[in-house]
Amino acid sequence: MNLLIVGSVATDTIETPFGKVENALGGSATYASVASSYFARPAIVGVVGNDFDKRHINLLKRRGIDLEGLQIDKSGKTFHWSGYYEGDMNQAHTTTTHLNVFESFKPQIPESYRRAPYILLGNIHPGLQLDVLAQVRGHHLTLCDTMNFWISSEPRLLERVFRRVDIVCINDGEARQFCGTDSLPQAARELLKFGPRRVIIKKGAHGVLLFGKKSFFALPAIPLKTVKDPTGAGDSFAGGAIGYLAKSGKTGEAAFRRAMVAGTVMASFCVQDFSLKKTSRLTKSMINKRAAMLIESTKIPNFRI
Amino acid sequence: MNLLIVGSVATDTIETPFGKVENALGGSATYASVASSYFARPAIVGVVGNDFDKRHINLLKRRGIDLEGLQIDKSGKTFHWSGYYEGDMNQAHTTTTHLNVFESFKPQIPESYRRAPYILLGNIHPGLQLDVLAQVRGHHLTLCDTMNFWISSEPRLLERVFRRVDIVCINDGEARQFCGTDSLPQAARELLKFGPRRVIIKKGAHGVLLFGKKSFFALPAIPLKTVKDPTGAGDSFAGGAIGYLAKSGKTGEAAFRRAMVAGTVMASFCVQDFSLKKTSRLTKSMINKRAAMLIESTKIPNFRI
Repeated sequence: MNLLIVGSVATDTIETPFGKVENALGGSATYASVASSYFARPAIVGVVGNDFDKRHINLLKRRGIDLEGLQIDKSGKTFHWSGYYEGDMNQAHTTTTHLNVFESFKPQIPESYRRAPYILLGNIHPGLQLDVLAQVRGHHLTLCDTMNFWISSEPRLLERVFRRVDIVCINDGEARQFCGTDSLPQAARELLKFGPRRVIIKKGAHGVLLFGKKSFFALPAIPLKTVKDPTGAGDSFAGGAIGYLAKSGKTGEAAFRRAMVAGTVMASFCVQDFSLKKTSRLTKSMINKRAAMLIESTKIPNFRI
Repeated sequence: MNLLIVGSVATDTIETPFGKVENALGGSATYASVASSYFARPAIVGVVGNDFDKRHINLLKRRGIDLEGLQIDKSGKTFHWSGYYEGDMNQAHTTTTHLNVFESFKPQIPESYRRAPYILLGNIHPGLQLDVLAQVRGHHLTLCDTMNFWISSEPRLLERVFRRVDIVCINDGEARQFCGTDSLPQAARELLKFGPRRVIIKKGAHGVLLFGKKSFFALPAIPLKTVKDPTGAGDSFAGGAIGYLAKSGKTGEAAFRRAMVAGTVMASFCVQDFSLKKTSRLTKSMINKRAAMLIESTKIPNFRI
């Protein structure tokens, strides 16, 4: 393994205008690890319950994901989220959230993961994100994700996470909420003040912005005729992005821009089918082809008047 | 002149978190013609009333805009819009709209404009847009803009406009509304069925999408620390884009992509100050510099895994 991913492993019941799935594989660590598996050698730290389907384990294993750190808590059921999408598909509506065994989740990083050169802190309590950082050693590149819930309830803890990581990956609404400004460039500048090298602001169907201390990159999303299920798009993005960084071993602007392409491509595959149906069955050639399409559709000829 | 622009000429009273202007120069034809004047030789067809300030005329003349087609209707006052912005600045709130002499505006295209090689049909009643097309002759490239009001009230007339023009330029909400779909690629495909060569979907701060029958281009907007006054951004975009096409004389994909850059740059200058304060005082060097910044911030290195 060269990429440690900590986050939720869940089963989801999802309804969209394109259909419905019940107890499908989900969770931030799951989406991120599958997306990253085309670039890196990911390992998951998370927890599942006594009902977790063997087929889900097999899917993760087929993608070469190291599961030594996946705790199986026989005392209860797996985290289950149930929700639906309608209209413009950018907004998930939650029907029920059963945290189950995830409620008492304490990340235990196996000894063999503690020197992981790349770390993705998925969307969990910022206190747990800090716990993970306290358990790892050596030089590593760390990316953290979060959500509006922690911004409201634990802003000070989250700030401590932002001070410790190399990359803050956050969506536009969350960046505005955390920084109390409507301007995304201003929000990014404030987030950079905590010390990360890069701030990534995800804008869903509008693409992604990458801010460095002295650099800026904007990448549109890939326009899709149909978005079947947006669940996991942000996690797939983060997994693809840090997976690419782990593969490249570089941290310059070019590597980060390529990582944004990798993330965008993985998110675009993710939303084209329910759960991990599409993302788990890709080939390198499919990924290269879609990346080439994205690059072609954003290429600007020289301009001078 | 080589670019005919038909639309509104107005005075605006605008309040934003950054200040307030009263009876400032505004209107779709005004913004578009000033933006286009850095690339082309525009002429306006529009109407103003007995109160139209000589300084506004002088501003337009200084930008080299041909005003032979600007009717002065002494029977009333100039179209006046009053509104404000707050929060994320993407949404204008109208306080009052006084159409005044614009209410009975009938575009009269002067003989010397009738063979204009480029035509921008600004946001006016689609019946008037068709009137303009009936008055012009020869080969020309036509771009039309519109608004949600005409989509609701005159969808069939608007459809006839879309069948007659080369470029449909519309914002994302309007495209969704007209086509009855949430998917912008789907909306673009439906609009292309009416026959235009290109459909441009403007997404405000999220940039612009350019669809051809077999081509696609996505360009992010330029991130600005402060947006002082968003009024006229869409018109400045359209003016910059068709102005660039008029300058280049080309209609291939590269020319259209450069036109999107020109439009994006002009819109970014427009919103940085009230009314036409900034857009009317640019230099070619400022435009080239900002275009270079935009191109640099969207450049993607080769990608292959």
